[in-house]
Amino acid sequence: MHLDQTISLLRRTPPALDALLRDLPEGWIFRNEGGDSWNVFDVVGHLIHGERTDWIPRAKTILELGETRAFEPFDRLAQKRESKGKLLGQLLDEFAHLRNDNLTQLRGLNLRPADFERRGRHPALGVVTLSQLLATWAAHDLTHLHQISRIMAHQYREQVGPWIDFLGVLKCAGHSS
Amino acid sequence: MHLDQTISLLRRTPPALDALLRDLPEGWIFRNEGGDSWNVFDVVGHLIHGERTDWIPRAKTILELGETRAFEPFDRLAQKRESKGKLLGQLLDEFAHLRNDNLTQLRGLNLRPADFERRGRHPALGVVTLSQLLATWAAHDLTHLHQISRIMAHQYREQVGPWIDFLGVLKCAGHSS
Repeated sequence: MHLDQTISLLRRTPPALDALLRDLPEGWIFRNEGGDSWNVFDVVGHLIHGERTDWIPRAKTILELGETRAFEPFDRLAQKRESKGKLLGQLLDEFAHLRNDNLTQLRGLNLRPADFERRGRHPALGVVTLSQLLATWAAHDLTHLHQISRIMAHQYREQVGPWIDFLGVLKCAGHSS
Repeated sequence: MHLDQTISLLRRTPPALDALLRDLPEGWIFRNEGGDSWNVFDVVGHLIHGERTDWIPRAKTILELGETRAFEPFDRLAQKRESKGKLLGQLLDEFAHLRNDNLTQLRGLNLRPADFERRGRHPALGVVTLSQLLATWAAHDLTHLHQISRIMAHQYREQVGPWIDFLGVLKCAGHSS
């Protein structure tokens, strides 16, 4: 685990999403890919819920309790409730603030190389290591950047005409809900 | 074609890529997804080549020549030659500069609603409209943001352990090379 590299990525996600999404026309914020799929607003709310309940709380569970207690299950629909009545700009601010706090906490753990192999218990996946948790935190950001680019591109599906054959993002069926 | 919405997206891509990529550790810039797949450096070079030779030149071809002359074919490997010896920071600067110029040119065309239905000829796809070209410009940005998130996530493929099952981006096989 190259912690510095992972932190370098984790601190980039809020400004990257800010540059991409702040003050975006509503057509891109609230349209989804059909059915009960998520829109961009849902995705940012989901990232916020992760900052509050997932990554750092789970890292602390590993360090304090090891495998003796499974992590709290993650609520993948919490944002439907928690984002209600907010504006996208507020969510972007909240995400940036929470991520910054969490990276400060992560640095404050002063992890030594041996710590990365410490083990915890995921409620569905079983035994996992701290190193895997931290790598997943970064890869989870990228999964949702991947999803956001796909949701936004979906709004152009009809408009691109025959070019659809050349646009990989419009062939992506989505790999997470 | 909502030109304002498309311009709003097109002007976001350079700052979003800047926030995500500038001064990124080399492990994320120069590693690819295996074989002769592209790395992040290649993708930014490809976006630059598009700014130089694809979108605005093709829009002008449509407006000036209609279907009488097919567009110049796009060189998908130009960046291997043109990016040689440059740093990623230089490429990000170059992309931002060219995109800004091109959006100034686009606004300067003073397109009227009827212009969006004007037709040109793509060397492989046949007849296309100006509206489709402009939508493709934006969707092409999103295709490569989608690809960049996938290339970066690939570097975590081994490190995430059992979480791989929950990370959509690691199930994406890539839909463009």
